[in-house]
Amino acid sequence: MVKKEIRVVGIDDSPFNKFKDKNILVVGVVMRGGSWVDGILSTKVGVDGDDATKKLIGMINKCKFKPQLQCIFLDGIAVAGFNVVDVQELSKKTKLPVIIIIRKWPNIENIKKTLVKINKKQKIKLIEKAGNVIQIDDIFVQLTGIDLEEARKILKVVCTRSLIPEPIRLAHLIAQGVVFGESKGRA
Amino acid sequence: MVKKEIRVVGIDDSPFNKFKDKNILVVGVVMRGGSWVDGILSTKVGVDGDDATKKLIGMINKCKFKPQLQCIFLDGIAVAGFNVVDVQELSKKTKLPVIIIIRKWPNIENIKKTLVKINKKQKIKLIEKAGNVIQIDDIFVQLTGIDLEEARKILKVVCTRSLIPEPIRLAHLIAQGVVFGESKGRA
Repeated sequence: MVKKEIRVVGIDDSPFNKFKDKNILVVGVVMRGGSWVDGILSTKVGVDGDDATKKLIGMINKCKFKPQLQCIFLDGIAVAGFNVVDVQELSKKTKLPVIIIIRKWPNIENIKKTLVKINKKQKIKLIEKAGNVIQIDDIFVQLTGIDLEEARKILKVVCTRSLIPEPIRLAHLIAQGVVFGESKGRA
Repeated sequence: MVKKEIRVVGIDDSPFNKFKDKNILVVGVVMRGGSWVDGILSTKVGVDGDDATKKLIGMINKCKFKPQLQCIFLDGIAVAGFNVVDVQELSKKTKLPVIIIIRKWPNIENIKKTLVKINKKQKIKLIEKAGNVIQIDDIFVQLTGIDLEEARKILKVVCTRSLIPEPIRLAHLIAQGVVFGESKGRA
């Protein structure tokens, strides 16, 4: 049984110019269920860098909501381009399950080819460690530290307004709105 | 009759260091009523500057939600210290009513004294133009382009979660979370 007031955090990165920006804003939205916003977190990560896992662990573990948090949602496995998150490490160090939300079926082979091309081959392992891509209704997920049945129950509570968990939708709007001056929407 | 889905924007500024920061982030949250976030806006204004009115008019008038917007909420009459908003100008140029939300009864005399002291005497006029401070339940408001009865009705719709209109509460959390790395909360 998943409580309607379950505390979760949804994380998304901001848009950036890959020729100009070095560090970009990542936003975390802490919600109770899919409606009440408890707080906003943020950090900065390097474009195509290797610091996302460490930065997200720090952002989550030091926040005052940590004792109540029950689940982390990520909008894709990477932030700031190819700053790929080690989800097993993120889950282990925060002691929280991680649900990666994927809007479109990912072309894993293409991603791997690009990583080889840009000399980031070691990140392929991180992508493989994130587990199988599973379809739930009209979105896809990768699960770490949580089984499919439990993930479905949590998604039912947090997807109040769209197919996307509300904290991810809000993190996306905020990151865009702060950087562009106006959010362009998506979900 | 105020629709439950009335589109409003709530605006708040970010915390800053008055000895260090020149321009600071101001966040606008566009909501339908008091629950659904439609979009996030932002701009930057000068600390103790004179550009708030112009910047807010620009932020609101150019946003895609403008045709649907029915009311502007400000968290106090000034942003970024003493960057006082000319609410009559804001209301006129956006063609929208403005409701200033005040959490504690303001000591207008002290504010005026400070403005004289820091050589910003001309801003006293702007404060006087914003109209009387009126208590509604446990908060205070100043109204421009809207009467008390109508303001009460809109407040009833948008104060879903606290005494403060939800778009103001969220703008506050976002501005804090983005600048500090974690929102401290308030409302």
